[in-house]
Amino acid sequence: MSRFFSPKNSALVPYVPGEQPRDQKYVKLNTNESPFPPSPKAVAAAAEAAEKLQLYSDPECTLLREKFTEVFGLRGDQVLFTNGSDEALYFLFLAFCDENRGVAFPEVSYGFYPVYADLTHTPALAVPLKADFSIDPADYAGLGRMILIANPNAPTGLALTRAQIEDILRSNPDSVVAVDEAYVDFGGESCLPLIDRYENLIVIQTFSKSRSLAGARLGFAAGNAAVIADLNTVKYSVNPYNVNSMTMAAGIGALSDPEYTRECCRIIAENRAWVTGQLRALGFSVLDSSANFVFAKHESLDGEALYLELKRRGVLIRHFSREDIRDYNRITVGTREQMEILIRKIREIMEEEK
Amino acid sequence: MSRFFSPKNSALVPYVPGEQPRDQKYVKLNTNESPFPPSPKAVAAAAEAAEKLQLYSDPECTLLREKFTEVFGLRGDQVLFTNGSDEALYFLFLAFCDENRGVAFPEVSYGFYPVYADLTHTPALAVPLKADFSIDPADYAGLGRMILIANPNAPTGLALTRAQIEDILRSNPDSVVAVDEAYVDFGGESCLPLIDRYENLIVIQTFSKSRSLAGARLGFAAGNAAVIADLNTVKYSVNPYNVNSMTMAAGIGALSDPEYTRECCRIIAENRAWVTGQLRALGFSVLDSSANFVFAKHESLDGEALYLELKRRGVLIRHFSREDIRDYNRITVGTREQMEILIRKIREIMEEEK
Repeated sequence: MSRFFSPKNSALVPYVPGEQPRDQKYVKLNTNESPFPPSPKAVAAAAEAAEKLQLYSDPECTLLREKFTEVFGLRGDQVLFTNGSDEALYFLFLAFCDENRGVAFPEVSYGFYPVYADLTHTPALAVPLKADFSIDPADYAGLGRMILIANPNAPTGLALTRAQIEDILRSNPDSVVAVDEAYVDFGGESCLPLIDRYENLIVIQTFSKSRSLAGARLGFAAGNAAVIADLNTVKYSVNPYNVNSMTMAAGIGALSDPEYTRECCRIIAENRAWVTGQLRALGFSVLDSSANFVFAKHESLDGEALYLELKRRGVLIRHFSREDIRDYNRITVGTREQMEILIRKIREIMEEEK
Repeated sequence: MSRFFSPKNSALVPYVPGEQPRDQKYVKLNTNESPFPPSPKAVAAAAEAAEKLQLYSDPECTLLREKFTEVFGLRGDQVLFTNGSDEALYFLFLAFCDENRGVAFPEVSYGFYPVYADLTHTPALAVPLKADFSIDPADYAGLGRMILIANPNAPTGLALTRAQIEDILRSNPDSVVAVDEAYVDFGGESCLPLIDRYENLIVIQTFSKSRSLAGARLGFAAGNAAVIADLNTVKYSVNPYNVNSMTMAAGIGALSDPEYTRECCRIIAENRAWVTGQLRALGFSVLDSSANFVFAKHESLDGEALYLELKRRGVLIRHFSREDIRDYNRITVGTREQMEILIRKIREIMEEEK
């Protein structure tokens, strides 16, 4: 830390992204990336945009917004595009939270939520999950603060129904309820159709997972026009040109190819069912995931030891050190071939343990 | 404004980017874009990166950093890449400013500086320019706050020498002195060679102007390892994957083609000399610009009227409404052909005025 660093940051513990090792080629199941390349329409559109990069990107994302309204049936003033959905989450905290306006989120969820709370000096209430790792909507009734829920939740993969989210929305009419739907396309129920009915609802989505655009960084926040206007005030005070031209073009390309996205999601769901069955047969507890990953612990293998053993054998999964989930690992659902390698390596490890 | 918006933002006046009209084709001289496409190496590298977007971009920007160290002779821990240089500027305020740690910048300069001060609740001292629009380094001696100077300055185009910046660095040993070198490649003296000598120096640059990558959004902050570590703490608390893969690739491509960048800058300097001479011959006062724009006022034509008349004729320049520069316009230096159109249209307007 330099001697110039503001003391307001002294307690800041930054987010640690999943490891992106460069030393060897891994079967990479640690950051919930898609095993499929982006739609050819996205690739072609991005490549074309690269030829005109001397011009600033459109800060209003006009063409992407038009495509979005066509696909999702919302109005153009009901969406804001961001440099990955992380930026949308950050803008939420900047817009709606402060020292006096707190936030509540599940205790076990996306690890970035508490970082944003710290960064913006927002009092954070971490609501415990139930013993089965599920979220109880009743725990979020009338909390008097912004509510932020990943649905499906990560790293558990468990989803609330739209009706359960509606319970939370109705019991918090004076607070923003933000639903982070990063993984919704793999089996959750999106709350986008509720936007015209709840002025306190904001839905966050990303193009990183189901649309295979993690490297492009594109996310959005959708909500009623007034809250989106607030987020725009923040955006134009932070980084007006936050989405670059190539990414905008890739986003339009991806939205123009819904069949491709659907087919990718279908295969992931199929492989998820397969790997869940295999893992359970090997003695794992596996939560019922609605996402593109599974959360699993073995009856006898230590969570961290399994992670390390698999890494040694060229398979990367994600282990979290926090006490309450340290027996578990989060495993991205990839191609059938990747899942077969995973199961084979786990079998090898179990053989050696005997 | 929604009823959920934090009162801390109530006074926030967002930045207004230069207009990007979509209604017709303009000779666009209003946002200091390059008239030249990016290097073919940048375009090809970005297009190739588009094919692998299912993977997250490298948050450490390893390959871009390696290329950077090779080109600029700095170490890898002396640079942080950002989503445009606006993000680097924002990170400066997050890292080094707060309610008690103020900032000073020239009263007439990049319009985003006061927005960042407001957003981060940083007391801002706007230091007046001299009557000739130049910056007097003596005005920045020992101010006890972060100092932020665009060099060359915008919208004036006037540059301080490296020795003058050193005076400011030496007289503020306990404060960060940030030099925003967005336009330095068109005729200024960069302070990058000073980094090993001043621990309080941070140099901000962008790939938007001389490298024709405005639409890709790539900037950097360079400084000693301790201040860059602070900026990394901020980055990993705001948006770890802030630079997308295509932009990183384009940046590497651009840095691999220094001859192309040099030639673009040479032509711009040549056209700047030509258009400056032409404007002066037509009765304009034109400041001696070291940037890719000129700042000019006419002896009899009203600044705003000229802007509007040129817009009506298909030439966009930038007019600022603030009182102290309202007689002036900022005109981007483009191709020789664009400059000839500009001069012809101004002549037409002057004819009609008679």
